Amino acid sequence: MRFLHTADWHIGKKLHGYDLLADQRDSIDKIIRLAQEEAVDAIVIAGDLYDRSVPSVEAVELLNQKLIEINLEKKIPVLAISGNHDSSGRLATGSPWFKETDFYLHTQLSEAFHPIEMADTQFFLLPYFEPIAARLYFDDERLTTIQAAMKRVITEMETLFDTTKKQVLVTHFFIAGGLRTDSETPIEVGGLNSVPYELLEKFDYVALGHLHSKNALTKGNVRYSGSPLKFSLSEINDEKGVWIIDTDELIPAFHALPPLRDIQSIEASFDELLQPAFYQQLNREQFWQISLTDRAVIPNMMNQLREVYPYILSVERLNGRETSQPFLERQREQNPQQVITTFFEEITGETLTEKQSKWLSEGLQTALDTEKRD
Amino acid sequence: MRFLHTADWHIGKKLHGYDLLADQRDSIDKIIRLAQEEAVDAIVIAGDLYDRSVPSVEAVELLNQKLIEINLEKKIPVLAISGNHDSSGRLATGSPWFKETDFYLHTQLSEAFHPIEMADTQFFLLPYFEPIAARLYFDDERLTTIQAAMKRVITEMETLFDTTKKQVLVTHFFIAGGLRTDSETPIEVGGLNSVPYELLEKFDYVALGHLHSKNALTKGNVRYSGSPLKFSLSEINDEKGVWIIDTDELIPAFHALPPLRDIQSIEASFDELLQPAFYQQLNREQFWQISLTDRAVIPNMMNQLREVYPYILSVERLNGRETSQPFLERQREQNPQQVITTFFEEITGETLTEKQSKWLSEGLQTALDTEKRD
Repeated sequence: MRFLHTADWHIGKKLHGYDLLADQRDSIDKIIRLAQEEAVDAIVIAGDLYDRSVPSVEAVELLNQKLIEINLEKKIPVLAISGNHDSSGRLATGSPWFKETDFYLHTQLSEAFHPIEMADTQFFLLPYFEPIAARLYFDDERLTTIQAAMKRVITEMETLFDTTKKQVLVTHFFIAGGLRTDSETPIEVGGLNSVPYELLEKFDYVALGHLHSKNALTKGNVRYSGSPLKFSLSEINDEKGVWIIDTDELIPAFHALPPLRDIQSIEASFDELLQPAFYQQLNREQFWQISLTDRAVIPNMMNQLREVYPYILSVERLNGRETSQPFLERQREQNPQQVITTFFEEITGETLTEKQSKWLSEGLQTALDTEKRD
Repeated sequence: MRFLHTADWHIGKKLHGYDLLADQRDSIDKIIRLAQEEAVDAIVIAGDLYDRSVPSVEAVELLNQKLIEINLEKKIPVLAISGNHDSSGRLATGSPWFKETDFYLHTQLSEAFHPIEMADTQFFLLPYFEPIAARLYFDDERLTTIQAAMKRVITEMETLFDTTKKQVLVTHFFIAGGLRTDSETPIEVGGLNSVPYELLEKFDYVALGHLHSKNALTKGNVRYSGSPLKFSLSEINDEKGVWIIDTDELIPAFHALPPLRDIQSIEASFDELLQPAFYQQLNREQFWQISLTDRAVIPNMMNQLREVYPYILSVERLNGRETSQPFLERQREQNPQQVITTFFEEITGETLTEKQSKWLSEGLQTALDTEKRD
């Protein structure tokens, strides 16, 4: 069989405060068109359909509408899971009815052990879960880390393998060695909660969600699809799209999908930027990252620039005068381990020893677990 | 055919701060049991399934679970609409899939013109809507009031009547002459947005939601089911339950359903209330409205009472010393027209003239419309 692998739609997400609903509608439309052109037998969505556990009503209406279009109107089967950004309880609404039209939406760990068989393939849909869910499901107090839980989960799945078929795992985690961008919300601290790659080698293909770059991991047949849109400046040079996999050949093929509004980078002086002869050659309806060559103070700079470039993501001074993204904001995009490590180095002039680094990650993990429980 | 009529579940609602989820689960379970005992062909839910447009995840999980139980497990058809408390966009999630198992959930005005035919009956499921929805649907700028909109809607429905069948309307509005309790959120001001009773006479039965008492309207075959639970002290003597209607006889039969925890009223002295011999005869796990006969000041009164009666709704002094429900709070439960009318009378010593009263209601309506648009 032939399926399309996408993930991390994050419907409702904003980019530096700008609403992306029109862009998201457009990118889902392009996914639907490609699915039809390529005559895929199913669309796999590997988690983070929404950006927030309580999405806006506009986000809910967009996803509802697109799923109706994909599954009820175009009759394309859908295999989906919840990610760390989705509320599994809310996302589950209606899911028992969806199965009738080959729309499988798994939001609970227990559902992962009911593989969906389609043509020559068994799909294991494993939603994002916390170790506590594995402790309860397996009634095993030792499953305190995601590594231990995942090992148990995959061992259990193996007992369900039909050797006459291919096995595909759909899941939403940080796989050890994966490359991060700035737009993911870390679910792992200091590597403690990352899933070892080796656990995934038992599957013919692993369709991942969570990391936003398609290049985050390229070992074997384990792939992140990446998000369909750029969600941070760090992704400016990323190519966004989806994978299409044929289970006969098992060679993932990437299909790039252009966004409605791309992120553009430009280096110029303030005066140039405001010259009609200069800006009329640009598509100013895109998102702009501006690098100013000026040295002088420019009063009311942002307002003047925004009149010409309505969607500015950042303005930097090439000569280091000012940036529109203050230090604290940049810090917020790093994970806690990085922030504290950098802080320690800046204050003491020394680097953390291996032992200190381990203490730190364990402490942060405890704090993170406590926070999630509350 | 034979159907059960309920409404105003308001899942997630709290009673004076107390969580009602266990009570709501229990009352839905009792409705399901009755539906099976009475072998009804469908359950009609006339709006306000949730208490808020963004219900808590616990409320979502409860409704999801109970609808699965009713429709997928017990195979009972469901005919439901959204009320003024529901977010029609959110509640619609999954609804196109539900039809396959005879679960009809209408959240848009346009859906009201696709009657559901079951056995000898046409069900018109008309969700709560604002006049703006009728203006857009009929492309008619004159539909500025709910009366005008409703007249147009029902005229349109009449063109769809199959004279060989019975017609049942399911809707969620304030019908002129209906009796209010303290627990509804007013959608009408000064009568401007109430639906004239005469418009409903064309139907063999009208299954209403919105008002919380089953006795709110008892003319002809037009009924409010009332809420399954008491949601305010003003409902203390209400009998809660559901109607069962047989379309052969068309005589609505009320079936009372006892709550998990009822509201009890008690008149006693503070000392009596704290005597084990006194309170051990009471079911203290119920909700209590306490009237104290004492005249003296009682330090730390509420804390002492709560140790024995964990679910106190109010404490009143029969001799008028103090009440636990201050004046302002009581005012909040009245509708704006009443509050201003009372205020005017208290300040001027005069009553509003008919003209003044009309100005007031029109002004409030404009304010209400503006607020809803924002």
